[in-house]
Amino acid sequence: MTTFGESHGIAIGGVVDGCPPGLALSEADLQVDLDRRKPGTSRYTTARREDDVVKILSGVFEGKTTGTSIGLLIENTDQRSKDYSNIKDIFRPGHADYTYQQKYGLRDYRGGGRSSARETAIRVAAGAIAKKYLKDKLGIEITGYLSQLGPIRLEPVDLAITNDNPFFCADPGKLDALDEYMRDLKKSGDSIGAKVSVVARNVPVGLGEPVFDRLDADIAHAMMGINAVKGVEVGDGFAVVEQKGSEHRDAMTPNGFASNRAGGILGGISSGQDILVHLALKPTSSISVPGDTIDIQGNAAEIVTKGRHDPCVGIRAVPIAEAMLALVLMDHFLRHRGQNADVQSHTPILPGHLSE
Amino acid sequence: MTTFGESHGIAIGGVVDGCPPGLALSEADLQVDLDRRKPGTSRYTTARREDDVVKILSGVFEGKTTGTSIGLLIENTDQRSKDYSNIKDIFRPGHADYTYQQKYGLRDYRGGGRSSARETAIRVAAGAIAKKYLKDKLGIEITGYLSQLGPIRLEPVDLAITNDNPFFCADPGKLDALDEYMRDLKKSGDSIGAKVSVVARNVPVGLGEPVFDRLDADIAHAMMGINAVKGVEVGDGFAVVEQKGSEHRDAMTPNGFASNRAGGILGGISSGQDILVHLALKPTSSISVPGDTIDIQGNAAEIVTKGRHDPCVGIRAVPIAEAMLALVLMDHFLRHRGQNADVQSHTPILPGHLSE
Amino acid sequence: MTTFGESHGIAIGGVVDGCPPGLALSEADLQVDLDRRKPGTSRYTTARREDDVVKILSGVFEGKTTGTSIGLLIENTDQRSKDYSNIKDIFRPGHADYTYQQKYGLRDYRGGGRSSARETAIRVAAGAIAKKYLKDKLGIEITGYLSQLGPIRLEPVDLAITNDNPFFCADPGKLDALDEYMRDLKKSGDSIGAKVSVVARNVPVGLGEPVFDRLDADIAHAMMGINAVKGVEVGDGFAVVEQKGSEHRDAMTPNGFASNRAGGILGGISSGQDILVHLALKPTSSISVPGDTIDIQGNAAEIVTKGRHDPCVGIRAVPIAEAMLALVLMDHFLRHRGQNADVQSHTPILPGHLSE
Amino acid sequence: MTTFGESHGIAIGGVVDGCPPGLALSEADLQVDLDRRKPGTSRYTTARREDDVVKILSGVFEGKTTGTSIGLLIENTDQRSKDYSNIKDIFRPGHADYTYQQKYGLRDYRGGGRSSARETAIRVAAGAIAKKYLKDKLGIEITGYLSQLGPIRLEPVDLAITNDNPFFCADPGKLDALDEYMRDLKKSGDSIGAKVSVVARNVPVGLGEPVFDRLDADIAHAMMGINAVKGVEVGDGFAVVEQKGSEHRDAMTPNGFASNRAGGILGGISSGQDILVHLALKPTSSISVPGDTIDIQGNAAEIVTKGRHDPCVGIRAVPIAEAMLALVLMDHFLRHRGQNADVQSHTPILPGHLSE
Repeated sequence: MTTFGESHGIAIGGVVDGCPPGLALSEADLQVDLDRRKPGTSRYTTARREDDVVKILSGVFEGKTTGTSIGLLIENTDQRSKDYSNIKDIFRPGHADYTYQQKYGLRDYRGGGRSSARETAIRVAAGAIAKKYLKDKLGIEITGYLSQLGPIRLEPVDLAITNDNPFFCADPGKLDALDEYMRDLKKSGDSIGAKVSVVARNVPVGLGEPVFDRLDADIAHAMMGINAVKGVEVGDGFAVVEQKGSEHRDAMTPNGFASNRAGGILGGISSGQDILVHLALKPTSSISVPGDTIDIQGNAAEIVTKGRHDPCVGIRAVPIAEAMLALVLMDHFLRHRGQNADVQSHTPILPGHLSE
Repeated sequence: MTTFGESHGIAIGGVVDGCPPGLALSEADLQVDLDRRKPGTSRYTTARREDDVVKILSGVFEGKTTGTSIGLLIENTDQRSKDYSNIKDIFRPGHADYTYQQKYGLRDYRGGGRSSARETAIRVAAGAIAKKYLKDKLGIEITGYLSQLGPIRLEPVDLAITNDNPFFCADPGKLDALDEYMRDLKKSGDSIGAKVSVVARNVPVGLGEPVFDRLDADIAHAMMGINAVKGVEVGDGFAVVEQKGSEHRDAMTPNGFASNRAGGILGGISSGQDILVHLALKPTSSISVPGDTIDIQGNAAEIVTKGRHDPCVGIRAVPIAEAMLALVLMDHFLRHRGQNADVQSHTPILPGHLSE
Repeated sequence: MTTFGESHGIAIGGVVDGCPPGLALSEADLQVDLDRRKPGTSRYTTARREDDVVKILSGVFEGKTTGTSIGLLIENTDQRSKDYSNIKDIFRPGHADYTYQQKYGLRDYRGGGRSSARETAIRVAAGAIAKKYLKDKLGIEITGYLSQLGPIRLEPVDLAITNDNPFFCADPGKLDALDEYMRDLKKSGDSIGAKVSVVARNVPVGLGEPVFDRLDADIAHAMMGINAVKGVEVGDGFAVVEQKGSEHRDAMTPNGFASNRAGGILGGISSGQDILVHLALKPTSSISVPGDTIDIQGNAAEIVTKGRHDPCVGIRAVPIAEAMLALVLMDHFLRHRGQNADVQSHTPILPGHLSE
Repeated sequence: MTTFGESHGIAIGGVVDGCPPGLALSEADLQVDLDRRKPGTSRYTTARREDDVVKILSGVFEGKTTGTSIGLLIENTDQRSKDYSNIKDIFRPGHADYTYQQKYGLRDYRGGGRSSARETAIRVAAGAIAKKYLKDKLGIEITGYLSQLGPIRLEPVDLAITNDNPFFCADPGKLDALDEYMRDLKKSGDSIGAKVSVVARNVPVGLGEPVFDRLDADIAHAMMGINAVKGVEVGDGFAVVEQKGSEHRDAMTPNGFASNRAGGILGGISSGQDILVHLALKPTSSISVPGDTIDIQGNAAEIVTKGRHDPCVGIRAVPIAEAMLALVLMDHFLRHRGQNADVQSHTPILPGHLSE
C-alpha cells in the first residue's frame, strides 16, 4: 500500500497492490470505515467537514477485484487554507513543522501538509479492503476500541457497541464520564492523550516470520506509523516487566491456551489466539492554549493555534488502527500461504481460539 | 542487514549491505559489543559458554570498508544439543515451539533453533559497525541501560557506569538490590521481565520520512523484532495517554527545546534532540518451575526446562537494543543524505541537542 | 514509483516517492513528454484520442517539490469499451488475455485492462520528473530515437530532429522510406516490430552497485518491463558474442576512453561515458489480419481485432524508454550520493564523457 | 537471496530466505552445480583451482529445510594474490577497476574483488536449491546450453549431452570445431564472447505480475546482473524487430500453442509454454594481449594481464544462468501461490507445454 496527498491539496489517494482476484468489492465497502474516521462526526472531533467520498479508480471490474493494483482517490472539498496563514512562519511545538522545515528546507504549512492526519483516510480505505478479504476468506474479525481517554480507563465490556457512540467506547457505564470530560476539555481549549486497543479474532496459527518480518515487528511498524502514536504493546505489553516467567507463560491444555498474555504472537508468529494490540496516542499540539515557540528565523514567539482540531485525536485513531492491523495480517497471510502451502496439514493441534 | 543461523547449528552469520567505503574497521571493533552480549559473562546469565568470536569475511580491505557487502560469521563452539532432547516432542508454553511446528510442520527443537536469542549476536556485530560509523562521521553516541528489573526501577543516574556492572545499570545505588533479587530468583528457578532504555545523542535533525518509513515506525519495527520484546515506547510513551496538549508539547526557545517528551522524533522525523526509546521484555519461559503444556499430539503434559537459561533475558538485550537503534539511524542517515543534499543548509535553526 | 489503472477505467495514476525537495515543477513539465507519447498524434499511431492531461495532486507546493510523495492522475476521457465486446470470450494470440485469465480466473477485457500500453502514460509523467531533476542538477540529457523499423535501419545522424517527425527518427534521409513503409503496412492491416535506442549523456561515474542492484540489471528490468519489449542490450549488446577481448575492451587514455563498446557501464557501475541502451519491441498482436485462436472454453476460433491500434507500438515506446532510464538513473544517483558522499573526491580521473 | 565475498577474501557466502519447509536438501545437491561452474575443470577455463566446497550453515535440520534462512559458505582455498600486485595501480580496460575506484575511492584489486565472477559460485549454490524445489514440487526442468561461441553457432540438438562436454554444448557435430577454436584462441592470448541460452520446461501458467514485477523484467534483471552479460532476450528477442504481427503471434489451438516466439511469457506472465532466454556475454578483458590504459594518477600506461583467466567466460555462465532463472521462477511461484490460491481452478485451458 502506498499513499500520497496533503491535508490541503487537491486530493489524497493511494494504491493497494497484491489484493487477490475475485473479492466482491464496492466503494460502499470502503465508505463505512471512512465515515467512522471522518471529521465532523461529533462535536468532539474537528469541525472541519469533508465528505471523504472514496473512489475506486482501478482494479475492480464488474464488482470484483481483478488481482491488479487498486487505485483509490478522495478529493479534498473543504480546504480553508487561510486558516493556516498565521502559522506560516512559526513552528507549532510538538508538531512536525520544525522537522519538515529542517529536513526539506521548505514545507506545505497548510494543515500540516503531508504530516496531517488527513493522509490516514486512505489507509482506512485500504484497510477496509483488507478487512473484507480477511473476513470473507478467513472469518477474521478486527475490532478496535478506546481503552483510555486521559484519566478514564475503559474496559472492553461489549465490543458490539463501539460503533454506537462517538468514542468507540465498549464500556457503556463510562459514556457519561467521557462526555463530561470532553465538554470540559473543549471549553479549556486544551487536548488530551488516549489509549486505543485492537483485537483480531479467528487469526490462523502460523502468520509471521522468525526474524526479519516478525508479525509483532510489522504490527509495531504499522501502529507507530500512525500519527501521534508514541507507544505500542502486544498482549500484556509493559506489564510483562514485572511478571515472572511462571506467571507470564500462557499454559497450554488440550482444550486450548489457558490465558493470552502473549497477545496471540509467540516468536514473531501468530499462535491462533486473539491478537491484542494497544497504542498510546499523544494529545494534539494544535491547541488554543498559548505556548512558547520560535519563528522560522529562530526568534522567540508565542503560538495559539486557531484551526479546527480534535481535542482528542486518539478517538479517531480507532478505525485507523483496525485498518493497519488488517493490512499487516493480509500481507502475512498471502506470504504464509505462498511459502507454506506444502506443509501437509495446517490443522492446529489446539483449537485456534482462546478458550477463556 | 540479513542474518542466518540456528542456536545449535554449525555457525550463525549475516550480511551488512550499504556500509559506505573508507570506514576503519576491524574484528576487534565488533568484538567489544559481542562480549557485552555474550552468555556466561556473569552468574546471572545463561551458563552456556560461547566464545562468540566474530570473523569479517568480506567487505574490508587493508583495514577499511570497501563499500561492498560485509560478511560476518560466528562459529558455534558449545552446542550441547542433548540438553534439548527431552523437549523434542512437547511444547514449552510461552515459547515459539508451537508456532514454528504449526507454521512449518517441523522444527529444529535444539535450543529454539532460529527463534533462539543466539541469532541476535550477529545483529550486535552488525550494529557495532553502524555505531562506529555514526560516531566517527556524525558524533552520534548510542547508550543503552536497564531501566527496570521486575519491581526494581532504575534511573539513568550515570550512563558511564553501565558497562562496569553485569546489569547494564546506570543507577549505582540499586546494584545491591539487583544482586539480591537475582540471587533469590535463580534459587526459585523462575525468571523475570525487564525494561530496557536506549538513548542516542547528537542525532542530526531531519532523519526519517513522513509516512511510510517514519523514523519512529522503523525503530518500533527494529525493537519489537528483538526476542521477548512486548512493548516499545518513544519518549514519554504510554504516559502520554494522561497528558494534556499544553503539558505534552515540548516548548521551543531560541536556546533549544525546553523539554523532550517527544523522545526526539516529531512527525516521524528526528528533531535533533536525544532519541529516547524504551522496551518491555517478557520473562523467559524456559524455567525449571513445572508448567502445563501439551505434546505434539495434543495430549496434556508437564514441562520442566532444564537447559541453561537466563533468569532475565532483558539484561542481555541492552547491547542488542543499541545495535538495532544504530542500524536504523545509519540507514536513515544514508537515505536522508542522498535525497536531501540539495537543501541549501541543514544548519539547525535550534541547537540540535536538548538544553535542559 | 507505483502506478495503477486500466485502459478503460475511470483514470490511471501513480505515486512518485523520494523526489528531493526544491525542484521547480509544474504540470506543463510533464505534459511535454505525455504529448510525445500520446495516441492520435499522427496517422501512424492508434486513432484513439486521449487528451492525456496529467494532474499533480500532491508533493508540489508553490511551484516546488516538497520532498513528499507526488501523486499523478490522468482521467480517461475516451473509453469506447463497446469496441472490445467481441473479444470478451476469446483470446487474442500474442496478447496477455490468456495469461491474465489463467492467473486471475477473470479479466478486464476492455482494451487489455491493466496490460494495456495506456498504463505507460503515468511512467512517462513520472519519468519527466526524473528527467527534469537529472538535467537541472546534473546536466544529464536523455534522448531516445527509433533505430530500426522492420527492415529499415536508422542511424543516430542528428538527435536534434527526433521530436520533429512522427517516428522519433534521427536519420533524416530515411523519413520518406518510413512513411511509405507505414502506409503500406496500415493498408495490409498488419503490424511491425521496432528497435528503440536511448542515450544518456553527462552521467557521472559511480552510479550502480556491484552485485544486486547493478545499474545495467536495473536498466534491463525497467526496459523489459515496457509492454512488447522482448530484448535489451547495453552498449554493443549481442554483437559482443563475436568480439575478441582485444577488440571489445574500451582503451583508456589520459584524454578519455577511446571507444564505448561497454555502453557506459562496467561491472554494473557507470563509467562516466554515455549510457547506451537498445530495446527490441514486438509487433502488436492486435491486428485485423485473421488468426487462429481459442475461446474461453478451449474451442477453436478465429480472431480479427477491430479496435484502434498502432501498427507499430515501438514508435511510441521512445518516450517511455527515456522515462524508464531517467527513473533508474535518478534512483541510483540518490542512493549513490547517500552512501558515497564520504569519498574524498569524486573528481573523475578521466573526463566523464566519451572523447571520440 | 543475498551474497557477500570477494575473489580473494577468506570466504564467500550468502543467505537464501523464503525457501519452504520440508524440502529434502543436502550439500551434495548443491555441489553438483558448483562443480559444473568451478574453474580448473578443463583446459579451456581458468587454471585457478578451487575446491569450491559449499557448506550449509543453517536452515536444514535432519535432512530437510526448516523454512528459515539457509546460510551458505564456500571458503577460498587458493588465493594467490601476489598474481595481482602488478595491477594495483593501473586500470584494466573493460574491467570494473576504474568504476570501483571512482565510486568508492579505494578498491580490493585482488582478482577483481567483489566484481569477480567468483561471487557467482554462491548464486549457483542458491540456484541449486531453487532448481531442486521446482523439480520436486512442480516438475520444472531448467537446462542451459552454449548457443554461440564467437563465430560458431550451436543448435540445441540434444540437451542431454550438455553436461558431457566442457562447453555445455548441445550440438554434438560442433564439438571439434569448438575445441580447435579454443586451442587457437588460447595460443593467441586473447578471449572471445559467447551466447548462452536457458530453457525452463513445465512452467505453470500464471507466474509473474502485470506491471512492476513482470516475470520477463525480473528475468532480465537477474540475467543482466551476471558478470559480463551485455544483452538479454526472451523468446525471439531482437528478431522481433523485423517480424510482422501476423508472423510473430503464436497461434492458439485446442491442442496448444502452434509456436513459441514469445518465449513462454505474455504480458509479463508465464503462458505455460517453455520459457526461453538468451544472453550475450562479452569476452573477458583480462587477456595477455597488451592494451592502452591509464594508471591511478591518469597517466598513460600499457596493460598485460598475466593472471589465470578464462579465454571464454561465457562457457561457465551456463550453470549461473540456470541458477538465476530458477531463483526468479521460485520467487514468482511462491508469490503467485500466495495471492491467487483463491482462484477456483488453475487448470490450464490449454496444455501447458508447447505442442510443436
